[in-house]
Amino acid sequence: MTDTYFVAVDWGTSGFRLWVIGRDGSVLDSTTAPLGMSRLKRNDFDRVLEESLDKLGIAQDVPAIICGMAGAAQGWCEAPYLCAPTRLDALGEGAVSVRGATRNVHILPGVKQMAPANVMRGEETQIAGLLHAEPSFAGTVCLPGTHTKWVQVKDGAIQHFETCMTGEQFAFFSQTSVLSHSMILDGWSDNAFRSAVRLATQDPVAVPRRLFSIRADMLVRDQDSATARATLSGLLIGQELMSVVHYWRDQSVTLIGAPPLCEIYLMALDFLGVGGRSLDVETTTLAGLAAAFHIQTGTVHA
Amino acid sequence: MTDTYFVAVDWGTSGFRLWVIGRDGSVLDSTTAPLGMSRLKRNDFDRVLEESLDKLGIAQDVPAIICGMAGAAQGWCEAPYLCAPTRLDALGEGAVSVRGATRNVHILPGVKQMAPANVMRGEETQIAGLLHAEPSFAGTVCLPGTHTKWVQVKDGAIQHFETCMTGEQFAFFSQTSVLSHSMILDGWSDNAFRSAVRLATQDPVAVPRRLFSIRADMLVRDQDSATARATLSGLLIGQELMSVVHYWRDQSVTLIGAPPLCEIYLMALDFLGVGGRSLDVETTTLAGLAAAFHIQTGTVHA
Repeated sequence: MTDTYFVAVDWGTSGFRLWVIGRDGSVLDSTTAPLGMSRLKRNDFDRVLEESLDKLGIAQDVPAIICGMAGAAQGWCEAPYLCAPTRLDALGEGAVSVRGATRNVHILPGVKQMAPANVMRGEETQIAGLLHAEPSFAGTVCLPGTHTKWVQVKDGAIQHFETCMTGEQFAFFSQTSVLSHSMILDGWSDNAFRSAVRLATQDPVAVPRRLFSIRADMLVRDQDSATARATLSGLLIGQELMSVVHYWRDQSVTLIGAPPLCEIYLMALDFLGVGGRSLDVETTTLAGLAAAFHIQTGTVHA
Repeated sequence: MTDTYFVAVDWGTSGFRLWVIGRDGSVLDSTTAPLGMSRLKRNDFDRVLEESLDKLGIAQDVPAIICGMAGAAQGWCEAPYLCAPTRLDALGEGAVSVRGATRNVHILPGVKQMAPANVMRGEETQIAGLLHAEPSFAGTVCLPGTHTKWVQVKDGAIQHFETCMTGEQFAFFSQTSVLSHSMILDGWSDNAFRSAVRLATQDPVAVPRRLFSIRADMLVRDQDSATARATLSGLLIGQELMSVVHYWRDQSVTLIGAPPLCEIYLMALDFLGVGGRSLDVETTTLAGLAAAFHIQTGTVHA
């Protein structure tokens, strides 16, 4: 692999994804591992990275650029937040060099917002990837996931953003809470999802008392698991959408996330008459890491 | 203990509480154990009850009356739901005799509601206890807990009720979710609670995007644990209150629950200009079980 240029890593809370990038910008190899920040101590990161790269035969003189929770205070090496509004070419400029690392490693900063208080680590790099592909992009980006981000982008910068814990709440309600007993089987119902989105968007204030009905509907009416799961998802996403209505009213939404999740967000937005599109999360992450790498190293982007 | 009359048991999901009642209606003895429905198989209930009563020296000819999840389909012996609206003297009439039990055991039914679907098991007995003390009571009862119930009572009957999963959500957010990292220390702030109740009641739709701010406020502003915990509680309770506004607007609320929890609900209601009072949950549970026992056995209430 004589043409290896750098290693790009998205290192999150629960795992990491790593790509080996060639001088022509192509992906030469990649790997993932469930070794996220939450399972690592500060001294573990270097070893974990080197072991992964050793398996792929990557020499120690190949530099690495990392985004995500590895840059958190509890991560490998803190990369202080940029403060929104912030241009995203500042990501590469703000990259922090990790002292004592086996190889040349830089970690990208996250973005914070002071009022209302908010933080992101990782999503800013995906948005940088979107801006690399579409430099004049302006509008709303939604990055659905454990903590879904809604971001207003303009003039190459993150202007403002909000976070909803919808993914983490869905996991809790569907896997741990009393509602989990009503969705022990797999399955999904688009109709039930749309009905729940309608209920939640027409009367978002009622959602707290509608959640338990998912359990009761099974007990008194034998409602099936597919309906229960889709109803839960629709209530939570509908409630989220009403919470960030200023992000999507009268404009289309660009989604970046796991394809199945983007699909149901698009379904909910479509129900509300809002247009949208979804972008591949791996492509945008890689593009953002590559753009930051080139800025950090002062090289011309491939 | 020659004057033992019957045994009253509140057998819930996570544990049970048992009282030995004398012929004069007094409590002769009591015990608790963390052996709730969720930890027991159907065949375990009889053994657990007998071991507890054996330790207290209660003979096998003393009958027992039970309310709560022991009567669920997954409990000891299913006691089919009464259907709201339902008078609460029907609890004793609907008590189910447990076949094969070592002693004479009756389990009280819960209450279901068809539209919107809802269920309760245990809270109906507490309301029966309230009605025993105040037969002409009419109004709203709130039973805060893991699954908080809001109940309209009139003409000796449960007319209508709602359930909010606020307690279960608070436990999740404060102990498991990413917000837990912002409230690892103990503490509470009445001011932060009231501020959050104000935010949530003035703009309930915004609550989903305000939750993550609890985490971000610590990261960007070093907010303390006491403020974080009280803010979480205030946002969730405020959101719940707006969801059931038809239960408390223009009327006072009678709370039945754990005293510290009743206290913060009263604080939130007071902030909204709503009057309230709290009743002792043990007293009301016992009164409800005793009333049902006397109806079930056709005896005159002590």
